[in-house]
Amino acid sequence: MVYTESISVKTERRLQVIDITHRVLDVLSRSGVSDGVLNVWTPHTTACVTVNEADPDLWEDMLEAFTRLVPVEGRYRHNEKYRWMPREQNAHAHILTSMVKPCVSIPVQNGRPLLGTWQRILFVELDGPRSRSVQVSVLGG
Amino acid sequence: MVYTESISVKTERRLQVIDITHRVLDVLSRSGVSDGVLNVWTPHTTACVTVNEADPDLWEDMLEAFTRLVPVEGRYRHNEKYRWMPREQNAHAHILTSMVKPCVSIPVQNGRPLLGTWQRILFVELDGPRSRSVQVSVLGG
Amino acid sequence: MVYTESISVKTERRLQVIDITHRVLDVLSRSGVSDGVLNVWTPHTTACVTVNEADPDLWEDMLEAFTRLVPVEGRYRHNEKYRWMPREQNAHAHILTSMVKPCVSIPVQNGRPLLGTWQRILFVELDGPRSRSVQVSVLGG
Repeated sequence: MVYTESISVKTERRLQVIDITHRVLDVLSRSGVSDGVLNVWTPHTTACVTVNEADPDLWEDMLEAFTRLVPVEGRYRHNEKYRWMPREQNAHAHILTSMVKPCVSIPVQNGRPLLGTWQRILFVELDGPRSRSVQVSVLGG
Repeated sequence: MVYTESISVKTERRLQVIDITHRVLDVLSRSGVSDGVLNVWTPHTTACVTVNEADPDLWEDMLEAFTRLVPVEGRYRHNEKYRWMPREQNAHAHILTSMVKPCVSIPVQNGRPLLGTWQRILFVELDGPRSRSVQVSVLGG
Repeated sequence: MVYTESISVKTERRLQVIDITHRVLDVLSRSGVSDGVLNVWTPHTTACVTVNEADPDLWEDMLEAFTRLVPVEGRYRHNEKYRWMPREQNAHAHILTSMVKPCVSIPVQNGRPLLGTWQRILFVELDGPRSRSVQVSVLGG
């Protein structure tokens, strides 16, 4: 069977990491699925999802490394083309999302995701603040 | 149930992004699956799949950023070892594919993938031109 | 149906790539699943899984590129906060794992994963040596 639910995430900064683990676990619990795979998907092209530790200092390191590799203020054809649109100066966010991608698939056993001790499901905003959504699907029995 | 179909992609340049969304949607439609997860997989080590906007300018920005991070003309043991094989001067493509990876898993509801307004499924050639394939699998009911 | 099994991986270096393809294939074979999707997941925040060629020279190139992009010896808030803990000087590993991520989902047909000729499933240790685990789940029928 498949159970899908959408959750809303409100971001408050241009670049921000938000721990959505508890909200994903709530969906898993409502799904009634005991064994299977949990797919987390964000339907955006300038935000992504990943899995890592719940350490806000690490999140700052992560965002700093990401934007050192693909700078917000870089020269991009995409930004140039839309240069009169302040909201479209976001090629960095598109490129980083292309690398990190909008999905993770986590195994589920006995109604629990097989997350390690330090693993949390993280929503990574790369062009906020915005209202975002995340689709949580549970496939299994 | 599971439905799998292979699609062919012909790339024309060394580095190229190709929008394969319509072809993946055709497979989904033939699968008859209404609710589940769609897995897109490319069985290559020098090309990958991702999801982002259908903007060819952005695709150029993306390929430029990728090869700025991992240069085509860098010094690599892999290239050195195969230095008499022009087709094997492709460590950049292997490394980038290791980062971006050959798969995405997209939730499906009511026979439609939960792609956002701007999300397209993109094939990323990193060592073309070549004949490539993409496996599209739909799992669900 | 879903079949899940955990495999152990012992890493011997700080940075190391280990080919786990045969061990994942053994689980697939024991699962009895003929058609579906194979999910490979590592429950760690400083190691990841990817897919690429079985070339140890390429693996060195890969680790060199990864740590050129996100240096082991960089300045990180995470490392600074835990500066008296030698085992926690690993922000590079967390950040790279956030990018590469701990999972891959591979389609399975007739009891075989649809891996291309050169594709191998690789465990990427970014903060070893450690005892690691990998969860292999097979979903299908």
